[in-house]
Amino acid sequence: MIAITSSHISDERIEEIVQHIEKFGVAAHVSKGTDRTVIGIIGKADPALAEQLRAMKDVENVIKISKSYKLASRDFHPDNTVIKIKDVEIGGDQLVVMGGPCAVESPEQIDLIARLVKAAGGQVLRGGAFKPRTGPYSFQGVGVEGLEMMAEAGRKHGLLTITEVMTPEYVDICAEHADILQVGTRNMQNFDLLRKLGTIQTPVLLKRGFSATYDEFLNAAEYILAGGNPNVMLCERGIRTFETYTRNTLDLSAVPVLQSLSHLPVIADPSHGTGRRELVEPMCRASVAAGADGLIIEMHNDPDNSMTGDGVQSLFPDQFANLLVDLEKLAEVLGRKFDTPKQRIVRGADEASWLTEDELAAAGR
Amino acid sequence: MIAITSSHISDERIEEIVQHIEKFGVAAHVSKGTDRTVIGIIGKADPALAEQLRAMKDVENVIKISKSYKLASRDFHPDNTVIKIKDVEIGGDQLVVMGGPCAVESPEQIDLIARLVKAAGGQVLRGGAFKPRTGPYSFQGVGVEGLEMMAEAGRKHGLLTITEVMTPEYVDICAEHADILQVGTRNMQNFDLLRKLGTIQTPVLLKRGFSATYDEFLNAAEYILAGGNPNVMLCERGIRTFETYTRNTLDLSAVPVLQSLSHLPVIADPSHGTGRRELVEPMCRASVAAGADGLIIEMHNDPDNSMTGDGVQSLFPDQFANLLVDLEKLAEVLGRKFDTPKQRIVRGADEASWLTEDELAAAGR
Amino acid sequence: MIAITSSHISDERIEEIVQHIEKFGVAAHVSKGTDRTVIGIIGKADPALAEQLRAMKDVENVIKISKSYKLASRDFHPDNTVIKIKDVEIGGDQLVVMGGPCAVESPEQIDLIARLVKAAGGQVLRGGAFKPRTGPYSFQGVGVEGLEMMAEAGRKHGLLTITEVMTPEYVDICAEHADILQVGTRNMQNFDLLRKLGTIQTPVLLKRGFSATYDEFLNAAEYILAGGNPNVMLCERGIRTFETYTRNTLDLSAVPVLQSLSHLPVIADPSHGTGRRELVEPMCRASVAAGADGLIIEMHNDPDNSMTGDGVQSLFPDQFANLLVDLEKLAEVLGRKFDTPKQRIVRGADEASWLTEDELAAAGR
Amino acid sequence: MIAITSSHISDERIEEIVQHIEKFGVAAHVSKGTDRTVIGIIGKADPALAEQLRAMKDVENVIKISKSYKLASRDFHPDNTVIKIKDVEIGGDQLVVMGGPCAVESPEQIDLIARLVKAAGGQVLRGGAFKPRTGPYSFQGVGVEGLEMMAEAGRKHGLLTITEVMTPEYVDICAEHADILQVGTRNMQNFDLLRKLGTIQTPVLLKRGFSATYDEFLNAAEYILAGGNPNVMLCERGIRTFETYTRNTLDLSAVPVLQSLSHLPVIADPSHGTGRRELVEPMCRASVAAGADGLIIEMHNDPDNSMTGDGVQSLFPDQFANLLVDLEKLAEVLGRKFDTPKQRIVRGADEASWLTEDELAAAGR
Repeated sequence: MIAITSSHISDERIEEIVQHIEKFGVAAHVSKGTDRTVIGIIGKADPALAEQLRAMKDVENVIKISKSYKLASRDFHPDNTVIKIKDVEIGGDQLVVMGGPCAVESPEQIDLIARLVKAAGGQVLRGGAFKPRTGPYSFQGVGVEGLEMMAEAGRKHGLLTITEVMTPEYVDICAEHADILQVGTRNMQNFDLLRKLGTIQTPVLLKRGFSATYDEFLNAAEYILAGGNPNVMLCERGIRTFETYTRNTLDLSAVPVLQSLSHLPVIADPSHGTGRRELVEPMCRASVAAGADGLIIEMHNDPDNSMTGDGVQSLFPDQFANLLVDLEKLAEVLGRKFDTPKQRIVRGADEASWLTEDELAAAGR
Repeated sequence: MIAITSSHISDERIEEIVQHIEKFGVAAHVSKGTDRTVIGIIGKADPALAEQLRAMKDVENVIKISKSYKLASRDFHPDNTVIKIKDVEIGGDQLVVMGGPCAVESPEQIDLIARLVKAAGGQVLRGGAFKPRTGPYSFQGVGVEGLEMMAEAGRKHGLLTITEVMTPEYVDICAEHADILQVGTRNMQNFDLLRKLGTIQTPVLLKRGFSATYDEFLNAAEYILAGGNPNVMLCERGIRTFETYTRNTLDLSAVPVLQSLSHLPVIADPSHGTGRRELVEPMCRASVAAGADGLIIEMHNDPDNSMTGDGVQSLFPDQFANLLVDLEKLAEVLGRKFDTPKQRIVRGADEASWLTEDELAAAGR
Repeated sequence: MIAITSSHISDERIEEIVQHIEKFGVAAHVSKGTDRTVIGIIGKADPALAEQLRAMKDVENVIKISKSYKLASRDFHPDNTVIKIKDVEIGGDQLVVMGGPCAVESPEQIDLIARLVKAAGGQVLRGGAFKPRTGPYSFQGVGVEGLEMMAEAGRKHGLLTITEVMTPEYVDICAEHADILQVGTRNMQNFDLLRKLGTIQTPVLLKRGFSATYDEFLNAAEYILAGGNPNVMLCERGIRTFETYTRNTLDLSAVPVLQSLSHLPVIADPSHGTGRRELVEPMCRASVAAGADGLIIEMHNDPDNSMTGDGVQSLFPDQFANLLVDLEKLAEVLGRKFDTPKQRIVRGADEASWLTEDELAAAGR
Repeated sequence: MIAITSSHISDERIEEIVQHIEKFGVAAHVSKGTDRTVIGIIGKADPALAEQLRAMKDVENVIKISKSYKLASRDFHPDNTVIKIKDVEIGGDQLVVMGGPCAVESPEQIDLIARLVKAAGGQVLRGGAFKPRTGPYSFQGVGVEGLEMMAEAGRKHGLLTITEVMTPEYVDICAEHADILQVGTRNMQNFDLLRKLGTIQTPVLLKRGFSATYDEFLNAAEYILAGGNPNVMLCERGIRTFETYTRNTLDLSAVPVLQSLSHLPVIADPSHGTGRRELVEPMCRASVAAGADGLIIEMHNDPDNSMTGDGVQSLFPDQFANLLVDLEKLAEVLGRKFDTPKQRIVRGADEASWLTEDELAAAGR
């Protein structure tokens, strides 16, 4: 840590500051420049010291050189964290695709979509039972029943499941039903929720706050890790900028940045990151090329009639299946595997029904 | 609500969209331009309709014309909401000043500061017992005991008290001890917390999320109002922008904007809004001139030794007292009252002790 | 300047970096921490050194401690710069108000508005002859003729004039006709324009780029000062943020920040800073309370029929006159003068005509 | 275009607004909702009408439905624009890579780098003769001589050349020496420069302003197109956000967005977009995967000693050559060609010298 003083500081004042620093059991190292004096703090200082220094008269700036997070840092843990859940490894060689609707709507809906995600080659079924909504009058999710519907669909079709948890008191019940718990962008700094997630071992997908810096993001992960849960994945899902054409600005540089600062797996969410269906495919490809360990993609059998606003960013099942075939080729060139069995999907008799290649063949078509 | 279609839409597709709209029990009104077709939705539509339309093929954009919040809107409640707590009215003629430390540290500290806030002419004592901190290794507040210390100091010195609540399960105990509950910037969209606050009657000071739009801010207030608690104050505390010299960018236009869109009182927080002590005074003046109903200001008897990083933005007690004298004059010119009794404060024998004018007189100095 | 190295740097590499630094004729001062090594550079280094260091292997970060601008800095010039033009002083005790239309439209229009600005108590007439417009099909200003119309109106009514210059080749002709030249927000980093303005002595009002940091803003001023023109005013006119309800976010903290970093006068522009007429009045008051040396305000006799889009943010003449009366009282409380003669203005027989108190009296009404 | 009125508008006022609209020779179409009234404007309106409506009493909002740019729009020109310069086509099947230093420093430097760019498989040599710099004391480029050095290097090694032009008066001389003219991010709204570039036929690479929306970006392109120069490429180079770890936030969604809104080629600049060497490679891959028509990449033989600060984001020649080999494979999977001859590059005897595979072979190593 370094404290930079104002240009007209007296020697007495420097001495006072040095004494203040030494009270914390660390050494101070004064270096006078032509313009300003710099005081280096040598040793592991209490976080309060930085904060007090910043408040002191004649101190212009305090710069932390060591990172404020430890367990999340690659300095601390040089090898990649690979999270193994049943037969899926996240953060290893394999690309992982999580697909499904914004919200669980009914047993039939989630079963149909699970079948399609599996056929297309995805490994994880996503779906929200509790939905965080900007306004109180919007659809808030089907609740606990949705957890059961999704768990059932995941089991039946051989998919892992991921669902969002919004409040500490629901962590246990969500962890009972889902393989991965998601923390949404608005809850990235809901510290009580993070602390609670640190007390269990269920893997957590932590979404970046829509205005969080990388440093804040990794500090949020640190809360979970420090509590004792090492199974954290980071998810870039777009940040808020001045541009309003897209719902958010997907910050794909976050992928290599987070992978260099941290050992945790990094997942990209081009659905929320762009908010527009026609951008999801190119940005999925770009995410994989940037090095993402996985993707989380909204897919819906009938987006026009979805119960939340996210239909606009949901892929149709046939698009989703075609995309996954493309991603397999792309992954190969990039030295990654994505070798799950994959089938094309085609639209069935009516708007919202869909058939896999196998089903078509079985139907003799 | 208006749906704007793509330029090459067919008449059949327009008809399909119209039928979809009519299923929601509202009327559709088609208006063909030279370039695009606009479909107006007449009547109070389900929020899901907007979201579905947005997802539909050939719909380029959906624009909501009515606001998504109701109870928070001035259209719905044309007169100002005035929140009366004991003898203090917030949102009326009187300017309200809330002052105190970032965090409650000890009974002595909070008692001393309460004495100074009262002497200077403030009406409310602020202080955090639970502190939301970016990293898990920073001081997290003294907890429930802090609530008691603050309640005691408030009672003794005749001040209202305000403290932050971070999680639904602590709402009741915080409400037992404090007159006003504060929702912090990171919790503005902690919807479970907002819902819980809607079930009580204790006034709530809702801080704007550091990247929340006015619309999202008012929707967050709507959660509390819709739950049945009408006593909500809005607090502008700075937003996140590209500028890093200040901790945040205090968006003072929010004051007249929120007052025009809503009937709720608007409080400004120049301490967090700037993050630098030397900017707090001019920005307090600017806030009052912009029309704020009150200010929340960090003040500490010994900022160099405060336990959180916010010492850097805390006023010294003498600055605080002088500022309040200035604000009274300013308020008068602006047609507001701020006529609480006010004393100057001077530094005592050592760094962290302070005396009011009365005490000086009593001591015969 | 300080270079911070990566955690695993070798002593040999540190020595190489030190030798590289010493080639620039400055000293290097190595300070090893428990985690990272910090190299201080003592002496006035070539700007290229910082840039090269940043590019070097094993250097994680380079922090400049001295400011990159000199002539604009208050360190260099502790007293306020007061720019005296005829009998108006900008940056001194007196508050200065610049008012007028977005664009000069005709001799009659600008003459009428000049008469009203003068009557209301303003000191400077603003008006654009050349307009920077986002799209090529919008009205681009009346050009050189507009300069003449405005100069004539200024002379006749005893007002200084300010107009925008967009390109180096027009600097001379604009300086012939106007008392102050304005550099628009999009041109803050048009370095050829800034260099050209450095070669004359005409005062320049430099608007902050809508996404420029304070540091970049002061560096832009430095271009003009370094060229030899000391007469620069800084103008805060709103920055671009995620909020779209207002046209820009007026960053009023810029006023005290720039006044502390620099000695140059600071003007606020609440018209562009908010983009909404109803916000101009409160934000003018807030600007003065924040300590602004002056205001630039759009006022139009007939905003509904103005030739640019800025009618929406233009005050009506009666609003403008009432506001200036209020500002005089406010300035007084704040220890500033604004004692120009002021008359109220009332609407005349038709929409776009206006009468001053004197004219009313003369007309026997 | 649509005007949305306030909720309490009278029928008389609506009629007045309609009459105002009709004065512009277009039709108005009134549609009364339960809450607000919407007035549709049918026909091609003068841009001033929108602006006047926005300023009118009782008009809450004006929404333009047609785009403000025409020639840049894909609606107007459905097929991709392919810009052919000598034997290189930009915007067609072939991926185009532009490589080279931030600044031309000497004939030897630019000749060496041109040789390496060609060997690695690039098609265009980049290099600045005039450099836009934040502060006046930084290196400003070698000027006109640099243009000649670069033209000579391009000719000798069979590369096209691209260089930045900063001011209208240098357009002609730059166009004499370079194949493509670049408009820098700070000049995206230097309208006089854009107008001048509209008068020539030399292709222009227009960089997105670091805080420009897509709409503003395409309007800037429209200035050049409207002047008569159809040869415009759009370049995404990162936007300014709250995140400061990267120099800018590379907005890769811009690639598919701009390709859908416009027919112009889209180039990505991961060097400026990230400002960190270690991020350039993954973001080049991501750019190609997102669909970019080309890349502009900083490469320097000796970044530690480059004369501008951009060494930190410059690839070393061996990294550049390896990257281009990878990009060829990636392009193939994505249905694009990048089949220029490519050689690996290795470091020579000293830090700043480099050898191609052919040279190594010729040297018998």
